[in-house]
Amino acid sequence: MDSVTASIIDLRSDTVTKPDDRMRAAMAAAEVGDDVLDHDPTMARLEETVAGLLGLEAALWVPSGSMGNLIALMLHLKRGDRFLATKGSHVLAHEQGGAAWLAGGMPEPLPWDGGPGRPTPETVRHAIGAPEPYFGLYTTLLCLENTHNAGGGAVTPPDEHAELVAAAKQGGLAVHLDGARIWNASVALGLAPSALTAGVDTVQVCLSKGLGAPVGSMVAGSAAFAAEARRARKMLGGGVRQGGVLAAAGLIALENIDSLAEDHVKATTLADGLRERGWDVTQPDTNIVLATVPDLDQALAQLRGVGVLAVPMDGRVRFITHRDVSTDDITEVLRRLGKE
Amino acid sequence: MDSVTASIIDLRSDTVTKPDDRMRAAMAAAEVGDDVLDHDPTMARLEETVAGLLGLEAALWVPSGSMGNLIALMLHLKRGDRFLATKGSHVLAHEQGGAAWLAGGMPEPLPWDGGPGRPTPETVRHAIGAPEPYFGLYTTLLCLENTHNAGGGAVTPPDEHAELVAAAKQGGLAVHLDGARIWNASVALGLAPSALTAGVDTVQVCLSKGLGAPVGSMVAGSAAFAAEARRARKMLGGGVRQGGVLAAAGLIALENIDSLAEDHVKATTLADGLRERGWDVTQPDTNIVLATVPDLDQALAQLRGVGVLAVPMDGRVRFITHRDVSTDDITEVLRRLGKE
Amino acid sequence: MDSVTASIIDLRSDTVTKPDDRMRAAMAAAEVGDDVLDHDPTMARLEETVAGLLGLEAALWVPSGSMGNLIALMLHLKRGDRFLATKGSHVLAHEQGGAAWLAGGMPEPLPWDGGPGRPTPETVRHAIGAPEPYFGLYTTLLCLENTHNAGGGAVTPPDEHAELVAAAKQGGLAVHLDGARIWNASVALGLAPSALTAGVDTVQVCLSKGLGAPVGSMVAGSAAFAAEARRARKMLGGGVRQGGVLAAAGLIALENIDSLAEDHVKATTLADGLRERGWDVTQPDTNIVLATVPDLDQALAQLRGVGVLAVPMDGRVRFITHRDVSTDDITEVLRRLGKE
Amino acid sequence: MDSVTASIIDLRSDTVTKPDDRMRAAMAAAEVGDDVLDHDPTMARLEETVAGLLGLEAALWVPSGSMGNLIALMLHLKRGDRFLATKGSHVLAHEQGGAAWLAGGMPEPLPWDGGPGRPTPETVRHAIGAPEPYFGLYTTLLCLENTHNAGGGAVTPPDEHAELVAAAKQGGLAVHLDGARIWNASVALGLAPSALTAGVDTVQVCLSKGLGAPVGSMVAGSAAFAAEARRARKMLGGGVRQGGVLAAAGLIALENIDSLAEDHVKATTLADGLRERGWDVTQPDTNIVLATVPDLDQALAQLRGVGVLAVPMDGRVRFITHRDVSTDDITEVLRRLGKE
Repeated sequence: MDSVTASIIDLRSDTVTKPDDRMRAAMAAAEVGDDVLDHDPTMARLEETVAGLLGLEAALWVPSGSMGNLIALMLHLKRGDRFLATKGSHVLAHEQGGAAWLAGGMPEPLPWDGGPGRPTPETVRHAIGAPEPYFGLYTTLLCLENTHNAGGGAVTPPDEHAELVAAAKQGGLAVHLDGARIWNASVALGLAPSALTAGVDTVQVCLSKGLGAPVGSMVAGSAAFAAEARRARKMLGGGVRQGGVLAAAGLIALENIDSLAEDHVKATTLADGLRERGWDVTQPDTNIVLATVPDLDQALAQLRGVGVLAVPMDGRVRFITHRDVSTDDITEVLRRLGKE
Repeated sequence: MDSVTASIIDLRSDTVTKPDDRMRAAMAAAEVGDDVLDHDPTMARLEETVAGLLGLEAALWVPSGSMGNLIALMLHLKRGDRFLATKGSHVLAHEQGGAAWLAGGMPEPLPWDGGPGRPTPETVRHAIGAPEPYFGLYTTLLCLENTHNAGGGAVTPPDEHAELVAAAKQGGLAVHLDGARIWNASVALGLAPSALTAGVDTVQVCLSKGLGAPVGSMVAGSAAFAAEARRARKMLGGGVRQGGVLAAAGLIALENIDSLAEDHVKATTLADGLRERGWDVTQPDTNIVLATVPDLDQALAQLRGVGVLAVPMDGRVRFITHRDVSTDDITEVLRRLGKE
Repeated sequence: MDSVTASIIDLRSDTVTKPDDRMRAAMAAAEVGDDVLDHDPTMARLEETVAGLLGLEAALWVPSGSMGNLIALMLHLKRGDRFLATKGSHVLAHEQGGAAWLAGGMPEPLPWDGGPGRPTPETVRHAIGAPEPYFGLYTTLLCLENTHNAGGGAVTPPDEHAELVAAAKQGGLAVHLDGARIWNASVALGLAPSALTAGVDTVQVCLSKGLGAPVGSMVAGSAAFAAEARRARKMLGGGVRQGGVLAAAGLIALENIDSLAEDHVKATTLADGLRERGWDVTQPDTNIVLATVPDLDQALAQLRGVGVLAVPMDGRVRFITHRDVSTDDITEVLRRLGKE
Repeated sequence: MDSVTASIIDLRSDTVTKPDDRMRAAMAAAEVGDDVLDHDPTMARLEETVAGLLGLEAALWVPSGSMGNLIALMLHLKRGDRFLATKGSHVLAHEQGGAAWLAGGMPEPLPWDGGPGRPTPETVRHAIGAPEPYFGLYTTLLCLENTHNAGGGAVTPPDEHAELVAAAKQGGLAVHLDGARIWNASVALGLAPSALTAGVDTVQVCLSKGLGAPVGSMVAGSAAFAAEARRARKMLGGGVRQGGVLAAAGLIALENIDSLAEDHVKATTLADGLRERGWDVTQPDTNIVLATVPDLDQALAQLRGVGVLAVPMDGRVRFITHRDVSTDDITEVLRRLGKE
């Protein structure tokens, strides 16, 4: 089976989505300029559009979500500052430690006592603590993640979000939101993305996951933040020249937001089918399903054996649905995994 | 009462101990050289003595335990490496974030499921995880702390220590021991300090806490480590010239190890007395007593009001006994805090 | 005149070149994969092709030349190492200081006593110095730049290159070559690019300058270097997903190497014409002309006034010729600047 | 001769001076406290005294001049900022690169066109340059050094100092003065130290060079600077406990300032004598003599052969006179080096 590449169904990540014909045509036709030297008009249009969607003053394109998060943390944190982030969050677990040595922050991982991927406001307040000039570090930032990847694509509802932000602000903290999949949260809740960024100082969103752009994320905040972020991007080597070819794909990707609802239905179908087949799986809020298995390596090998690709995440199997797998593909995955 | 400075009993830390006459005389008589340029003979004698006590090849004097830990982490960690350390440990909570931005490490705090201040070997193994080239960071170091400050001066027994080191080594990790109060653990267990460093790569020990030296810690390991540590110390600005004046005090301090037993008796007396007076306190392994109180600020103020100094630690009150408080002082503390 | 945008002739940089129709078609048709998660086939083809052209084992795509240089320096330098680089070189002057705080290197700028943009081997030997354990830093890297931007696009001939590399190697140094415009040097000399990388450990080359790709540079070296560079790229946030859309443009760009000869002719025409009009200009080896002017701001304003764009560089006016300005455009520039 | 240790005359550095009996007695009698936890009274007295001498608001004790300079640069520089410093200055050449990777600064070495160890104001203005948003780094700091070590202990006179500071301030730069040997400059000029700090933001001064304290330097500036510097010192591991034992030595050391005049006479005697014996030496402003020799290793070996210790510095032999060599010792050095 392994050799029949054509039949492989890839549920490793929504990052595997490929640009479709419309997107490719837009890239080929994009109006461009030199975005490092001065200005790429398509890039400028994308940045304005995303800032508007997020309800923030300005946005900046970056080659990856990791760079978007890194720039935000670099600008929020002074050397040695302590920051709060949820256990297993992308900034802590999947960015090669950049939050520590590049942004200079000492993380405090927060438990998920508020629900999958999120703490309670009380936990945030407790973690901030009282200022202790001799013993303590300065705690200056709270990082949230919505939807939460390691939390199984869990959505933080707007009221909980507001309470978490309020707890941070009362303690004098800035708030950064890793919104790589904020579009999924927005669709799942039936709310505009800007409803999910209320009170945050900065947010990172991704164009290349469920939305299907080949390359690119955005980091947004105040106009002053965006100006400083542009310099930080250059320092890290993330400034690109005729980025308009990628921005054109990003603008098309934004038109795909509503269609994420289909990915969510596919995830629910997958979770239900797996459960019927005896798997211990999470109930998806969005497009991610996590399965607890007796033996992780064996489970992944079994899946590969029938042409289904998934990845390990914190000891569980992670499946993600996306534009490039159809409802029929999900049915086929379940068929290959055997009778209910 | 506040104004009667003479009667204040200072239980904030064993770092408040002052050099005694014998130590001061040794400082005044110390043979010295230029320890940055080439060699200070008293410093060399101290470094050799401490390396011998710890059963390691070489040791290097540093101005503080924070610098000793920092140098060890700098040399163990490559940029972005992940390291494991116990929750609330000194390297995570009390060194201004140097482990992150200066040593470049992304910490994973470990719970205390093995006892106060220590994880189980199973927790270490689980935290190391399997290598995941795409998602994961490289985990390269385990930091232990014995005795454990935030754990209430808790001692890790040698068999547990050996199992934790073995778990780390099986996973390919180096091991650093923050042994700022290793002397207390040694005395409490009736074992040589070298029995508590078995298998570790590097260890930091303090001369200026219970042992009473005015200034200085040591970081020890292989001869190659010590040579690299010397360069790192210079980079951080920790190289000193005629350090022999401090090393002489350090050599006297080492003669005070056995007398730490008295500090432990004083701590037990304090804990027993506080408990009889209705306080919720830890049972000390060594010289630290932690009290859980309904209102931290109020408790510290009440203590200050009767001329007793303590500090907040992770939401509790911390008392430390040391050379410069006598058994009578402890009796006096209990008297001031009222009838049983 | 300022308002007649259509007539503006942009000589600020060869980075302003826009992808042509053939390149756009290739981007639209590119076969892609997820290059962070595993593999993008077009990216793999580009990386193999460039490694071959440069005579090195492996190459890695990066979003910018700044990131390519930064990754090389990060992997060559340990914290606090000293490195040698030519005065005004891109790594020193135009990368926002990343060589210092991100790569951790203390630079020693070398004078141009060997010719524009390059030292003599004797200067390199002298700058390395003798190891001085107490006073000195460790010098571990020589950075060359060919062609040299601030040197007016100056070409370092292969025999001089070989002597500089030999001087570095004798002193135990690694060598990194910033070859952002190595293609121009190759064409000017009539030699294969690999003839200009002899003996270097790592090299960065650019696809988005004269060659016309919209985005992207490559950093090349040993296979082991490329593997480590991939991790460093992820840490910096430079990993991209369906990078094949950009790699496809890069593969077309490589077909443009020979046509750089035309840019060199245009630069000579420009320099000759300017000189005839009384300007004090450099004689171009390749596609860059530097003009020494009495008043920099006034000269740039005068040029802007007739619709000619240039940039300041180290107190001089820099003009660069490229694919998107024709021979007629150069004639027009000279016409606008007045009679001989 | 090498074996007759007693007869060795050590001219390697003024850091080799050993604490005298009066200093040792003061250390032994020092009133102390815990300077990390709250307050050491002798340290406080030293800090106030030095701030007063320097005409600045506040001063902080640090274990070494390297740490004093490092802290100042850390607080002045943002990541990637460019700073100006004289060629061969201590911050560039002798602090293991900390200015780059720890303080995050990209240095621009300035030539000595204003005199030994100092640029002209015109050179400072030119090096600052005009702000260039795309090409340029942000230049934010000028570092001066008075006296200048590699410049042969050269003194910058107050009028030149004032012009250099003015040039920096006009360009929006802060100014840090490495005044490790400012006492020598003060004595040579017959001016108070505060006359040499006019206009600077921060200054580092050393107690353990010519003044003879065993350990310690001070970094001074505004009260706000000193407060931040205290935190930075803790992060680097430079906070010490009963530092009063060292501060007591520092207070005695300050009484030795006037006696530096004798070191200057000794240096002049040495230079004159060497010149009469055919050596090519600098004429000392203060206590340093540099000799240009045909073969550095051979010259140092020859000196060692007759029991005279010196060090290499930038290709020359450096001799330093200090408290622990007498006028007779200098006569003896000249005697050993043979007839005029």
